[in-house]
Amino acid sequence: STTMPGSLPVNAESCWPKDVGIVALEIYFPSQYVDQTELEKYDGVDAGKYTIGLGQSKMGFCSDREDINSLCLTVVQKLMERNSLSYDCIGRLEVGTETIIDKSKSVKTVLMQLFEESGNTDIEGIDTMNACYGGTAALFNAINWIESSSWDGRYALVVAGDIAVYATGNARPTGGAGAVAMLVGPNAPLIFERGLRGTHMQHVYDFYKPDMVSEYPVVDGKLSIQCYLSALDHCYTVYRNKIHAQWQKEGTDRHFTLNDFGFMIFHSPYCKLVQKSVARLLLNDFLGDQNLETANGVFSGLEAFRDVKLEDTYFDRDVEKAFMKASAELFNQKTKASLLISNQNGNMYTPSVYGCL
Amino acid sequence: STTMPGSLPVNAESCWPKDVGIVALEIYFPSQYVDQTELEKYDGVDAGKYTIGLGQSKMGFCSDREDINSLCLTVVQKLMERNSLSYDCIGRLEVGTETIIDKSKSVKTVLMQLFEESGNTDIEGIDTMNACYGGTAALFNAINWIESSSWDGRYALVVAGDIAVYATGNARPTGGAGAVAMLVGPNAPLIFERGLRGTHMQHVYDFYKPDMVSEYPVVDGKLSIQCYLSALDHCYTVYRNKIHAQWQKEGTDRHFTLNDFGFMIFHSPYCKLVQKSVARLLLNDFLGDQNLETANGVFSGLEAFRDVKLEDTYFDRDVEKAFMKASAELFNQKTKASLLISNQNGNMYTPSVYGCL
Repeated sequence: STTMPGSLPVNAESCWPKDVGIVALEIYFPSQYVDQTELEKYDGVDAGKYTIGLGQSKMGFCSDREDINSLCLTVVQKLMERNSLSYDCIGRLEVGTETIIDKSKSVKTVLMQLFEESGNTDIEGIDTMNACYGGTAALFNAINWIESSSWDGRYALVVAGDIAVYATGNARPTGGAGAVAMLVGPNAPLIFERGLRGTHMQHVYDFYKPDMVSEYPVVDGKLSIQCYLSALDHCYTVYRNKIHAQWQKEGTDRHFTLNDFGFMIFHSPYCKLVQKSVARLLLNDFLGDQNLETANGVFSGLEAFRDVKLEDTYFDRDVEKAFMKASAELFNQKTKASLLISNQNGNMYTPSVYGCL
Repeated sequence: STTMPGSLPVNAESCWPKDVGIVALEIYFPSQYVDQTELEKYDGVDAGKYTIGLGQSKMGFCSDREDINSLCLTVVQKLMERNSLSYDCIGRLEVGTETIIDKSKSVKTVLMQLFEESGNTDIEGIDTMNACYGGTAALFNAINWIESSSWDGRYALVVAGDIAVYATGNARPTGGAGAVAMLVGPNAPLIFERGLRGTHMQHVYDFYKPDMVSEYPVVDGKLSIQCYLSALDHCYTVYRNKIHAQWQKEGTDRHFTLNDFGFMIFHSPYCKLVQKSVARLLLNDFLGDQNLETANGVFSGLEAFRDVKLEDTYFDRDVEKAFMKASAELFNQKTKASLLISNQNGNMYTPSVYGCL
């Protein structure tokens, strides 16, 4: 059996449009919020549990005058108006969400109302759905579209929106709500790297919504953190393997490390998990290269962890503490600034990572 | 404001992989069915209402031992085994469906169970959702992926599956169930044309599922037929405009007509609507070219309809009758054979059009 039916033509790079990525971005989130210090008091938990433990200051929430359709309509209209865009210039529109108010009719078709006056109905794309991944899937699809023969020269519009609410309990302070709209095209200021994405997709029941009449998900918090960190490990490994292969082809033989990143943004269920993720990536760097300097520098004092195994350390407090400390500077420089909206509005699910831009 | 941010490079055609399309296809539908003549008796309607009026012979249905996940798991495993494919050779997997049993966790992640043994988790794609369009959106995404820089040489796998059931009443006999899996790659026997797709997307409440606890949709049958035929008109117009532009660039100046198609397949809620659709396309040909021969040939005797307007004829019995008759031969030659599964199993929603292959 064939395993690889083909490969990219050698001259392909010269054929795709230049610098495909995000040309413009718009965000919308509710004007009302819950102060997390108030929520700590209301829930009768220790002061600091949500604000310091989770790293959250405020949590946006929707009134009964808003739903997923209105969030997305608002953010699209804002994007179009702020950039003086004609509705004719959009050739693709898709929505990533897991907040449904109808099991069949997509949010995308609702957004088509905005296009009615222009008469533009020749627009591909639809809703993509899987927990927080839907927005990213939509964005990847839009970029692929622009590099494919299906592209007709127009922009793609990617909308990610969700209302995150949890039942009373531990997960409740990790709620939030909002929507992001991204205009995707060539000659973008924010460009997507080609051929280097690392994906990890697995069948797990850490977060799902089996109760059709409830807006609350079923969450296994501990398993969900393990899934997040394990997916991070896998994606970073795949990414490094791909970039190493590319570098080797170019004649360079060295390890990729976090120093090679200008900035790092993450899907942000709550800010503390993002901070732990930076620590986790540093642990990956540390375990991935036995020759790293441990006498001084960021890895000094970490020799004791030379032989730990990634899959044994999801909840290892010693490892976490040591690498949180070691990565503190890295976090402050390359990630902290991205968490403003996450800290002030909470988890938006699908748009969460794009709110960090 | 810019309306077109770019255009395809002139040498693009030589860069995309050759002949991207469907390499292999597998179908699965339930083994139990309702005979439509029995359903006519049970419902106390005129004999022939479902069998002749709708053109349906049998209607497949799922027992309580099957759901959307099991349908899709079965069809993917069958495709992989029949084609002796290794799970390593899939680089993209996505599912088009509107049959949800969870509001957040996608069918795609459930399918990842099949990939576990191979260790292949670097697989993009997710579920796409909007009534019957989800499977087509997934297929277009897969084709775009193979022509983009994201492609890594592996196959894409597109799964479309649904269980179509309606509340007691007129729509019930248009039910059905099934799933189709399509292997997408280059050098395919069934190739997708480049740059010629016509899409029509509009905000309409003809079919939706607002009741979260019911598996039944809310259907406005008459509006739904109007939407179907109007979308067909629009798509055919867009398609002809695109192909005319292409032909003009090549120096050819003539009208596109149905004679230029080898075969025509359709999304098939019920077979009679497909037959009416062929008639509808012939009406489009007729109205689109004032110079068509009406003295003899397929259009003879149709002069009386020279000045009708497409948007006035969705339910015009005279027009329907005349063009059904005129297109009978065309239907028999280019479409009828494709309706076997639709006739014997019923509407599968997203995979319906692909069951016609």
